[in-house]
Amino acid sequence: MITPSAGLIDFLKSSDNFIIAVHFDPDGDCLGSASALSEALRSIGKKTTLFCETTVAAPYNFMPGSEEFKRPDQFSSQGVSSASFDSLIVVDANSLSRVVKNQNKEFFSDFKGRSAVIDHHETESSFGDIKWIEPHMPATGMMVHSLIKEMGIQITESMALNLYTAIVVDTGNFRFDNVNSDVLLAASELAAAGAVPSRIYSELYESWSTNRLELFKSVIATLTIDEGIAFMYASKKMFDESGADAGDAENFVSFPRVAKKLKAQVFLREVGERHYKASLRSKGDINVARVAEKFGGGGHKNAAGCVIKDDFEAAVDKLKKELKTLI
Amino acid sequence: MITPSAGLIDFLKSSDNFIIAVHFDPDGDCLGSASALSEALRSIGKKTTLFCETTVAAPYNFMPGSEEFKRPDQFSSQGVSSASFDSLIVVDANSLSRVVKNQNKEFFSDFKGRSAVIDHHETESSFGDIKWIEPHMPATGMMVHSLIKEMGIQITESMALNLYTAIVVDTGNFRFDNVNSDVLLAASELAAAGAVPSRIYSELYESWSTNRLELFKSVIATLTIDEGIAFMYASKKMFDESGADAGDAENFVSFPRVAKKLKAQVFLREVGERHYKASLRSKGDINVARVAEKFGGGGHKNAAGCVIKDDFEAAVDKLKKELKTLI
Repeated sequence: MITPSAGLIDFLKSSDNFIIAVHFDPDGDCLGSASALSEALRSIGKKTTLFCETTVAAPYNFMPGSEEFKRPDQFSSQGVSSASFDSLIVVDANSLSRVVKNQNKEFFSDFKGRSAVIDHHETESSFGDIKWIEPHMPATGMMVHSLIKEMGIQITESMALNLYTAIVVDTGNFRFDNVNSDVLLAASELAAAGAVPSRIYSELYESWSTNRLELFKSVIATLTIDEGIAFMYASKKMFDESGADAGDAENFVSFPRVAKKLKAQVFLREVGERHYKASLRSKGDINVARVAEKFGGGGHKNAAGCVIKDDFEAAVDKLKKELKTLI
Repeated sequence: MITPSAGLIDFLKSSDNFIIAVHFDPDGDCLGSASALSEALRSIGKKTTLFCETTVAAPYNFMPGSEEFKRPDQFSSQGVSSASFDSLIVVDANSLSRVVKNQNKEFFSDFKGRSAVIDHHETESSFGDIKWIEPHMPATGMMVHSLIKEMGIQITESMALNLYTAIVVDTGNFRFDNVNSDVLLAASELAAAGAVPSRIYSELYESWSTNRLELFKSVIATLTIDEGIAFMYASKKMFDESGADAGDAENFVSFPRVAKKLKAQVFLREVGERHYKASLRSKGDINVARVAEKFGGGGHKNAAGCVIKDDFEAAVDKLKKELKTLI
């Protein structure tokens, strides 16, 4: 159990009309956290409106309230500006630069109310009149769960579903390094409140189309592992034959993690003649962003990407050579 | 929290020298449950010996105590018979026919003591002076966890690791239909007692050998889905070519669950000429134990197995026909 920052509950109780904003390219953690918080505030008579710059991806449509998130253009077309709200809550992000990109920054320019931040990301932002930032928390959903309980609000079945989903997404269904007894206890309480674990898992991870499955079968046949580095590719022919699209290949790069002592993974996707998109992943301290940068790409330490224009074998050789300098 | 059957705790406290037996082809649930129970009994001064007809598969070697399980031939070569023990506990099985196959049945023929059963399987058996069978429990590990707590014995780090592993294995790392708030609460308590969730996940699911990965590539190429029923097989040739063994194919049957609207999965493993081992899995109310029973096998509602002696195509057709009556 974690205690909300001083002032946050007063802020929530003393305001009436909230806009709750999440980061763009939203995931299950920000969506579930914001939706549950919105429902909780409504249950004590508050008015809430949900903001997300990006359209919510279809795999999250099962989450109750996910249909309520509105983009800036939807607010504008209804003649609603941020001045219409007396309070702003930023959830699972700690600055407006993670909420709106350049062209939409002006949406919040006429906001005159008070703002609060509820987040678990490392912060370097000064944004927010009230900040509740807990970088050691595995999911913002766990913070919102604690907050709702602390406010004495009953967790409904839909809040439980949203918060359980938030936790599952940010812990890889209880398999990442961030899983501890607190995560499992929160999940247990949410299951008791009506979240159905297998249903949520199934919605998130067991919804592959036949095309996606056929593409996977082709891609996995190309898997090789050399000195702890896994290589896989998807040719245009494989996409054509399976009927799958680029989105269907998402996360395929993670599969080789099943292999013992794996250090890094590369997934090459053919996007044109002598033209490949490479997704790079690694475990621990191996910084694949350094490799991606050498080919004009970028990313994070354990997840990066770049584009290579070369023959397939040459592209593989070049990536392999760079990766081997790291391991 | 579940309460052990009347008499079980008295039985454990009043006996001194236990042989604890698990089912052959042991999984993480029986191994972890038996090892944790053994450690708990030793902590109150009892003598315990672990019995398993089959050598423990390498993926479970990380479990503390897994090296202690002895096969019948190892007992014999040390001149130890079942008459050497005053009490027998059968864990994660409820009859000796799940513990020893024909040739080893005589091992228990000279056992003259009392016996207890701790199990969560449905199959009915008259075996055991004391029976604690809870078919609704997701894992025997949860029962043993409750039992150890009920006996007032402190859960050590190694017991926690064994019991957490037991739960993870029988719930598919918290993704099967059997996951509920009790499962997650037990897991939370075990994580608090020292089990490290991400380490256990990695040991169980991210430790594939090259042979296993090669076998998977061959098996996944055979995947077909017909009316929501997935079929895959592993021929002897695939095992020979990949260098993998039977244990390497464990859990392959779960993979097709990624497919949308999947109802059931079948994985056939060739064990001899016209001789297949079938693993059956299902979601929700589809009771594959009923199908397995028709072929002389058994199991749980969502996870069962049987042996079929027939041509491959005929075996598939027969299983398909029976499964289709359920969906």
